[in-house]
Amino acid sequence: MPVNLTQPNKKYILSIPGIVLGTFEAGIKYSNRKDLTLILLDEGSVVVGVFTKNQFMAAPVMVAKNYLSDGGNKRALLINTGSANAGTGEAGINNAKQTCQALAKRLNISENQVLPFSTGVIMTDLPVGKIVNCLDPLITNLDPNNWLDAAIAIMTTDTIPKAISSSAIIEENEVKVTGISKGSGMINPNMATMLAFIGTDANINEAMLKEMIQEVTDESFNKITVDGDTSTNDSFIIMATNQAKHPEIKEKNQSYKMLKEAILDVASFLSKAIVRDGEGATKFIEITVEQGIDEQECQKVAKSIANSPLVKTAFFASDPNLGRIMAAIGNAPIANIDVSLIDIYLNDILFAQQGFVAPSYTDLIGKEEMRKDEICLKIIMMRGDSNSTVWTSDLSYDYVKINAEYRT
Amino acid sequence: MPVNLTQPNKKYILSIPGIVLGTFEAGIKYSNRKDLTLILLDEGSVVVGVFTKNQFMAAPVMVAKNYLSDGGNKRALLINTGSANAGTGEAGINNAKQTCQALAKRLNISENQVLPFSTGVIMTDLPVGKIVNCLDPLITNLDPNNWLDAAIAIMTTDTIPKAISSSAIIEENEVKVTGISKGSGMINPNMATMLAFIGTDANINEAMLKEMIQEVTDESFNKITVDGDTSTNDSFIIMATNQAKHPEIKEKNQSYKMLKEAILDVASFLSKAIVRDGEGATKFIEITVEQGIDEQECQKVAKSIANSPLVKTAFFASDPNLGRIMAAIGNAPIANIDVSLIDIYLNDILFAQQGFVAPSYTDLIGKEEMRKDEICLKIIMMRGDSNSTVWTSDLSYDYVKINAEYRT
Repeated sequence: MPVNLTQPNKKYILSIPGIVLGTFEAGIKYSNRKDLTLILLDEGSVVVGVFTKNQFMAAPVMVAKNYLSDGGNKRALLINTGSANAGTGEAGINNAKQTCQALAKRLNISENQVLPFSTGVIMTDLPVGKIVNCLDPLITNLDPNNWLDAAIAIMTTDTIPKAISSSAIIEENEVKVTGISKGSGMINPNMATMLAFIGTDANINEAMLKEMIQEVTDESFNKITVDGDTSTNDSFIIMATNQAKHPEIKEKNQSYKMLKEAILDVASFLSKAIVRDGEGATKFIEITVEQGIDEQECQKVAKSIANSPLVKTAFFASDPNLGRIMAAIGNAPIANIDVSLIDIYLNDILFAQQGFVAPSYTDLIGKEEMRKDEICLKIIMMRGDSNSTVWTSDLSYDYVKINAEYRT
Repeated sequence: MPVNLTQPNKKYILSIPGIVLGTFEAGIKYSNRKDLTLILLDEGSVVVGVFTKNQFMAAPVMVAKNYLSDGGNKRALLINTGSANAGTGEAGINNAKQTCQALAKRLNISENQVLPFSTGVIMTDLPVGKIVNCLDPLITNLDPNNWLDAAIAIMTTDTIPKAISSSAIIEENEVKVTGISKGSGMINPNMATMLAFIGTDANINEAMLKEMIQEVTDESFNKITVDGDTSTNDSFIIMATNQAKHPEIKEKNQSYKMLKEAILDVASFLSKAIVRDGEGATKFIEITVEQGIDEQECQKVAKSIANSPLVKTAFFASDPNLGRIMAAIGNAPIANIDVSLIDIYLNDILFAQQGFVAPSYTDLIGKEEMRKDEICLKIIMMRGDSNSTVWTSDLSYDYVKINAEYRT
């Protein structure tokens, strides 16, 4: 059961002028399940992406990065579930390229205008034949109103599709933003592939969209997928069709800010949705570290807490176990932490004061807060001006169940 | 159920000339459970220790380190379970000292000849009164044959006591070594306190024993408690009573080597026993990384695999999930890993060759190996001459159960 995340309502998912989507059952791993998605963009669209930092990036990631670096307008995204095409070497790259070639031929575009994305089991070959056989019906299916269908078709261990829209008024023109994502994130989803695709009809040049995706990623997906702990396939793409009537965004002006806000709304929802639908998650936990020396150290402390299996199981048990939290802070790889400076808030409750249980705190109050399914833990380091936030979930029986049973 | 670890047989646990032990029920957390242990050493003994690297070290660790740095012969170790006396500030330090003072007074030694150790719930006050009230009966109980009783009395979530003996012939004299440990280690027992005490009648000076404990720790306990991921209370102590008749060990000669071998036997058993009795463990897993550039990078790769919850749950499910292992290697914080150089062995089976599933490997063979309860995973990096080993266990339902229910 996802934590406070409900089925998206199709009528609130906006279509994006210049983008059509199609889905189809290719039978890659399961039958009777849509596992292939095509996103087709009008000419003149701009596409930018950020990808996994895992050193063993999957074949589709290498191909997509490579095609993006070729420059030129991208026209299509081809996404499959059931096979991650990761750890598959040269053959995997050729397989990914073959699917791009086959699609490019049918669309009368060039191979490197197609970006491939895969998620599913690692180290199995991509069934190129099955995919290519479905390209024609996939193209027939294309429709601007298929965002929710696409959100469903990219799911793996997700229990609920993730899709949302937002909009902005830019120089008196309404600009639409719609995004979908998949991923079954524990706090630190090392290896649970995260895919996210956001489309907008905003008019923005490539350089600005590249800056924007970095900024947005730092404030959304990077809060759940901390550096270096990413899957082999993680990818986040923003597509701008440039069909809105406002003047092109070429600098970081007010229009840039308005657009970024709308995109960040969507990205923030989508990344939190991954945690909310985390494998076996029963709680959504926001860990904020404030007043650290720099953002990096705040991130390290937040991550050390968020990734501690002992802290995570305590959250699952609704156990306000301050000791485990303090020990996790003490384990963070940063120098000279002074415990006697640290205050901790559990939601609005002062939990620890200067390193010790706060005088006003009682275990009864703590347990009441811990029983909630939305928990904010705030660590105040009192040694600087920086802060950082991580979104995470608890560690439950079901996490073990899902991950022990997946693939077998 | 511990993995291939059985109840120690008292008749194989050697007493150590110059060491007597006592245990008693102080009712610190539970009743009807021995929770207080005293180890008393004859005059002229040498005691050395290594302690947690967690920045929030517990009060007894601070006191023990402090007393050890005072120099002079130590005479007594006072160990309690039920309260870790961690995160308890000045008051905690005073409490630990008070128990040392009370014991010192009864033994007519000085306060800093007593070293305190605590394990149990963090951030609760040490019940000094309860402990002090039990010192007299504890002293009455002292006996050289109480090692196994002590191993039982220091247990917390352990399901089985951990005790073993070894011996060495040093210049024609038999030297005895006996050790006990407690700890419920997952692979990376961040926060599950590990305590280990090894006694020997060997004749060795303090400088040499200090070198030896470092060497032994690196080859045993550090394989399970990787740097920086230690609990607030982890402590490992070696006590040498110097009563054996061989000439004093003052340099790294053959005698040093023989003694180290015997102590390492004991330390190695005790540290593996912690993993074997790991919370919810169903498998004992040795991960060796060979042919890395330096030991540190081998350790990082081994740790990245060992700590990946996805790898750990795959082990639990007996799933030979090479993809998760490769992804964990790719996530290790080291530079420029070349996947196409990496071979992986699962026990004696060639699992991956140059980064891909080995041609001779089948999933059927892999599943058979994974069903065993002792698994060796060997990663050959093919980029240097160094290697490192980590001992770990899998991640099961019971791990979550134990950690969600502890304290509540």
